[in-house]
Amino acid sequence: MKKKAIAKTLAALLLILAINMLVPFCMALWFHEIREALAFLAVISSMVCLSCTTLFVLRKHTVRTFSPRDGFFFVTASWVLASLFGALPFYISGSIPEMSSAYFETMSGFTTTGASVLSNIEALPKSMLFWRSQTHWLGGMGIVVLTVAILPLLGIGGLQLIKAEAPGPTVDRLTPRITGTAKILWGIYIGMTILQTILLLAGGMSLFDAVTHTFGTLATGGFSTKNSSVAYFHSAYIDYVITIFMVLSGMNFTMHYRFLTGKMKSILTDGELIGYLVIFFGATLIVTIDLFIKGGSSPSDSVRLASFQCASILTTTGFITADYVKWPAVSQFIIFFLMFIGGCSGSTGGGIKVIRIVTMLKKAINEMKYLIHPRGTFNLKVSGTTIKKDIAYAISGFFFLYIALLFVTTFVVSTADVDVFSAFTTALTTVGNIGPGFGRVGPVENMGFFPPYVKWFLSFAMMTGRLEIYTVLVLATPVFWKR
Amino acid sequence: MKKKAIAKTLAALLLILAINMLVPFCMALWFHEIREALAFLAVISSMVCLSCTTLFVLRKHTVRTFSPRDGFFFVTASWVLASLFGALPFYISGSIPEMSSAYFETMSGFTTTGASVLSNIEALPKSMLFWRSQTHWLGGMGIVVLTVAILPLLGIGGLQLIKAEAPGPTVDRLTPRITGTAKILWGIYIGMTILQTILLLAGGMSLFDAVTHTFGTLATGGFSTKNSSVAYFHSAYIDYVITIFMVLSGMNFTMHYRFLTGKMKSILTDGELIGYLVIFFGATLIVTIDLFIKGGSSPSDSVRLASFQCASILTTTGFITADYVKWPAVSQFIIFFLMFIGGCSGSTGGGIKVIRIVTMLKKAINEMKYLIHPRGTFNLKVSGTTIKKDIAYAISGFFFLYIALLFVTTFVVSTADVDVFSAFTTALTTVGNIGPGFGRVGPVENMGFFPPYVKWFLSFAMMTGRLEIYTVLVLATPVFWKR
Repeated sequence: MKKKAIAKTLAALLLILAINMLVPFCMALWFHEIREALAFLAVISSMVCLSCTTLFVLRKHTVRTFSPRDGFFFVTASWVLASLFGALPFYISGSIPEMSSAYFETMSGFTTTGASVLSNIEALPKSMLFWRSQTHWLGGMGIVVLTVAILPLLGIGGLQLIKAEAPGPTVDRLTPRITGTAKILWGIYIGMTILQTILLLAGGMSLFDAVTHTFGTLATGGFSTKNSSVAYFHSAYIDYVITIFMVLSGMNFTMHYRFLTGKMKSILTDGELIGYLVIFFGATLIVTIDLFIKGGSSPSDSVRLASFQCASILTTTGFITADYVKWPAVSQFIIFFLMFIGGCSGSTGGGIKVIRIVTMLKKAINEMKYLIHPRGTFNLKVSGTTIKKDIAYAISGFFFLYIALLFVTTFVVSTADVDVFSAFTTALTTVGNIGPGFGRVGPVENMGFFPPYVKWFLSFAMMTGRLEIYTVLVLATPVFWKR
Repeated sequence: MKKKAIAKTLAALLLILAINMLVPFCMALWFHEIREALAFLAVISSMVCLSCTTLFVLRKHTVRTFSPRDGFFFVTASWVLASLFGALPFYISGSIPEMSSAYFETMSGFTTTGASVLSNIEALPKSMLFWRSQTHWLGGMGIVVLTVAILPLLGIGGLQLIKAEAPGPTVDRLTPRITGTAKILWGIYIGMTILQTILLLAGGMSLFDAVTHTFGTLATGGFSTKNSSVAYFHSAYIDYVITIFMVLSGMNFTMHYRFLTGKMKSILTDGELIGYLVIFFGATLIVTIDLFIKGGSSPSDSVRLASFQCASILTTTGFITADYVKWPAVSQFIIFFLMFIGGCSGSTGGGIKVIRIVTMLKKAINEMKYLIHPRGTFNLKVSGTTIKKDIAYAISGFFFLYIALLFVTTFVVSTADVDVFSAFTTALTTVGNIGPGFGRVGPVENMGFFPPYVKWFLSFAMMTGRLEIYTVLVLATPVFWKR
């Protein structure tokens, strides 16, 4: 491995993180949160020191291209490191006095999970609340750049689909160069941030709440600044604005680019997008009817609660406007089912992702055709493009590892005397980067009660789920470390 | 499709079923259960009439080889028909006065699921109890013959493994001809039936209980003649005898043949068998320790309860000696986890099956190796034999369809106002042909409370799971019905 190159890139990443941390530092000064300001200052200085020293020592070393092996190590290490330094302000200032909890909360932020260990969110100083939401925003964009621009280069199986699924090699990565693609995506992301913030301000939110909730929405994160999450605002307008932006954030970001460049046709024929919207509207319809008939809600409330909560879970955001564990059985099932799906590839959403579900479904149907006509030829087509066998192969491998990781996580959680269903949905909601689950980790609960070793393990689970399983697990194979 | 050939074979099957029904008919006479005797007589006569008429009308038609398409239709139709005629005695005699319930119970028998709609099993007349257990025995053997001898010929994906996994083409199907293979398997099955019955008699069981519980064990079915299942007998000896025979029944029956012919080496190097035993002993060990430390059981009770219940769920039998929903969290998780595994291929057990789990695990590890060495060549080996890509491909298709069927079933069950976890484990336990689940379908509960449409659907789910998903679902594709 190119150790020096990796160290240098990680140092650069730390510097970027330190610069970002200046925002909550300034806020702490502004709100006279002295203790918090000092905590941020201490962490920023140590990051700058560490980073500059590394960059100085390695100043003569030029970073060449990473091999896949370097790439896997760098990506995983960057998430581990960012969460470590990101957690320090919480820990040092005493906002979250326990390190495993602080690390969990920060990893939950960067992975855009949105699961929290805090029972009283509103008790946190404003600067800390802002930093907490900011980790979402940074992690969300980090993931889009990673999955659209970097992971395909490393050959991560299912993600090669982003390549396979786009009509041509140029539209694929938007522009031929990675940096160009990253810039466009950043532009779209920042534009959407500004737009949603303005719309939320228009709905009567304070600037602070508008920005933090926008961060939570666009990153499909789910951290709120209120104990009762979005339900706090009691506003249909705000609910619908957030619903729409959650749905947009769960889409492949190249769709937004195609939209801006007027390539409507390629949007309307995208197999993943169609599947995504069918699932969203189908789920919303069923829950709406169920809430109206069996839940006794008014028609307008039914639509509003159903669309918000289905969008929130499907896109793996995790904002809450209703305690869905008290909903009628069918609605509860739909929420549970959506936890297995996730957003589109190349979005900020987590989970298994729609493209994989669509591909596996078509593949299974093909298998049945082969049984009837063993010598027939049946192409596996998604969005008009034939999926190569190797990619379909990698996708089913991903699916199996995903389910396997769910079981390992459930096992670890159950050792803390948590009943099976709560433990299973804890696994589902962390590996899938969603946030809330069922039972003891339901929408009005939090994960603070877990013992430290479970929090550490869940941090690992969130990261593994976020980095598409393979990126992290590959580091655990002996082949990886063999010279 | 060769309609006449299928009709003729189905008629022969009905005749065999009618002959088998003579046993409970004679029992009904012996025990002076007049009403039941008449019910059996009526059903037997109608089956004989229908069957003989069909055979007479088609007497000049010779049955040639089935095409795969004919095979799928025949296999599915035979399970549907057998359950229909098998249910009639329950319904006509009034033992189970509702047709959806009677059909459910019989399908549960033939598929060796063991889920029951009866709240008071002991209230049933003896002849009916015997017929109920006999459906297990017939279905269990039917499945072994089907999966070892017939389905591989139809090219059902994952099952080609039985072929792939065996060292040579002759050991594979034991003997070159299907009828020869079937005869050997029947011999082993009958031999094991006699052996277990004698061992249970030696433990103080009555002949009636010994035979019915042997049927339930060898078929990995789980119907008991007692309300409290095997727990009724309060005997460590009986528990261990049943445990051992459950484990034996969950193995590939070709292993027993190899054992009898002294081919020990091929048994000890069998990847699926090793995986199966590792899972069984691993699960038993964890549950034993958990029951001892957190459950407060004595060491001997811990071993006995853990080994029995792990064997019962892993092999998809479903006998009960302890209400595991009251066990500590880790033990509950292990039971839940085992519900996803199932027995070995070519056994009477249901579920996903160990060979598929082993293959998918090895495949996923290979995928990771490819990520590090994209141009490397990594063989997928199970038991020393390389698995072809097509087979691994079919297995992952199976896995996806299995999970998809679980969700569809959960949805249908939840429409009957059943909470998500109970509904999900209902799906798990029916599709996997296990029997008991968690929550409202826990080990001391029954499925009688479901409305008729759920019972019909669950009958379909049990059959689809039992016939390896593809066999049934392929009938639902338009390609199947196209000329």
